[in-house]
Amino acid sequence: MSTGTGLERFSINQMTVKQLSLPELVDGCTELGIPGVGLWREPVAEYGLEATAKLVRDAGLAVTTLCRGGFFTAIDPAERAAALADNRKAIDEAATLGTDTLVLVSGGLPSGSKDLHGARERIADALSELGPYAAANGVRLAIEPLHPMFASDRCVVSTLSQALDIAERFPAEQVGVTVDTYHIWWDDTAPAAIARAGATGRIHTFQLADWITPLPQGVLTGRGQIGDGAIDMREWKAYVEAAGYTGPIEVELFNDELWAGDGRALLAQTARRFVEHAA
Amino acid sequence: MSTGTGLERFSINQMTVKQLSLPELVDGCTELGIPGVGLWREPVAEYGLEATAKLVRDAGLAVTTLCRGGFFTAIDPAERAAALADNRKAIDEAATLGTDTLVLVSGGLPSGSKDLHGARERIADALSELGPYAAANGVRLAIEPLHPMFASDRCVVSTLSQALDIAERFPAEQVGVTVDTYHIWWDDTAPAAIARAGATGRIHTFQLADWITPLPQGVLTGRGQIGDGAIDMREWKAYVEAAGYTGPIEVELFNDELWAGDGRALLAQTARRFVEHAA
Repeated sequence: MSTGTGLERFSINQMTVKQLSLPELVDGCTELGIPGVGLWREPVAEYGLEATAKLVRDAGLAVTTLCRGGFFTAIDPAERAAALADNRKAIDEAATLGTDTLVLVSGGLPSGSKDLHGARERIADALSELGPYAAANGVRLAIEPLHPMFASDRCVVSTLSQALDIAERFPAEQVGVTVDTYHIWWDDTAPAAIARAGATGRIHTFQLADWITPLPQGVLTGRGQIGDGAIDMREWKAYVEAAGYTGPIEVELFNDELWAGDGRALLAQTARRFVEHAA
Repeated sequence: MSTGTGLERFSINQMTVKQLSLPELVDGCTELGIPGVGLWREPVAEYGLEATAKLVRDAGLAVTTLCRGGFFTAIDPAERAAALADNRKAIDEAATLGTDTLVLVSGGLPSGSKDLHGARERIADALSELGPYAAANGVRLAIEPLHPMFASDRCVVSTLSQALDIAERFPAEQVGVTVDTYHIWWDDTAPAAIARAGATGRIHTFQLADWITPLPQGVLTGRGQIGDGAIDMREWKAYVEAAGYTGPIEVELFNDELWAGDGRALLAQTARRFVEHAA
């Protein structure tokens, strides 16, 4: 019989409770026994990179991922060079924060372009420059396929298979994938893709969010609390576990309604839901 | 040198210009030289089934499809029986209107269910009853995969491959698929699925709409005018033609902004865009 809290593998993605400051988030995690956090670059920069690293280190929190690098699809050479430089900086930040995983949102179609294939190839080009730099810094890049509803404006990598087609051009210690239930739950080929990812050690992070409707205008901030929607979290957890993944499980929600409420209560609710639906 | 108008294969889906009454739509088609219309059951019922059939027949318009049957995913036996009865009625209506194609929107997850696989199997069950009835009435059922953003609330069939996995259990004269650019444009496996559909004569209709962002609340009414978005219409037309499809090409838009304007002007604009981007 387990005597655990059920939170042993839980990591709270900072965006889920974005109304909390970093010290509030760290306090809340300590109080609730949450062992890990996924951080975002913007609030980390605001609080200070070194200060954040010290804050989480002193609290004994694991930084499971840093979100996010990417946006590799520009055609303009100056924009591409700027994106590469920014991603090297993101890799440095990940190393400073002590996480081994940088999540990548690869970028949408450049304005006026209808060329998905070309955009995907530019992602691979960028990774050929960034992969060795990441690995040299102990950081793995995790391509996140985003739901196809984001294909034009946010991420031309829409399925786990597409993400693996790119990732597999590189060593797994350089490039893998992010498995996020919200983006792939509808895809009956995703379980096989998870097995494929696991077979070469490319499941670099596993994230949960639930699918709820109606989607809000712009569709970005409609990710549902675990248990509120259409996704069977244990089913997807079983797929990644069968593929050999035993690492942290992040809950990453973007939800205007949840953000409008009390952040500490939301953190506690999310921990409870994790235990109920995924522990 | 072609002396055609470029509209020879164009069909206007009634929903695109839903602000027009059926006589206005038919007049507009006659005036602009549009040879085909895709009709919807609700406005047809409102105008009268026999009256609509006579109206379009007298105008020499081809009815390229009837939208829509489907909604097969209920678990409750009474609901399932009602859905089957309603689909038999839709098949009768298609036959009366003189179209050979009934478009199917298969249905989302029943309330509280997280079982996509089970829902997809119930679609196949329904088709095993409806397929023979449709074929006996000269009507083909065309499963429409809807964009994955509709998977929970509207259609658990999210890709052309999933649609074919179901359709291929039946003879092609009973069940095929709808190829709609809006729903599949992001999918790099869709071109191969189109070839697969064509190989067994299952491309029962080809529809166009463009992908524009931001998506509106609820995401149903954000389909973009041809040429306004991210989709290369000629690329997809080339795929269906390479797969042997030479039939009508419907433009089907749902767009609040377009619906708020003048319907005749929208009809003329849509015809021009068709010629420019798809003829």
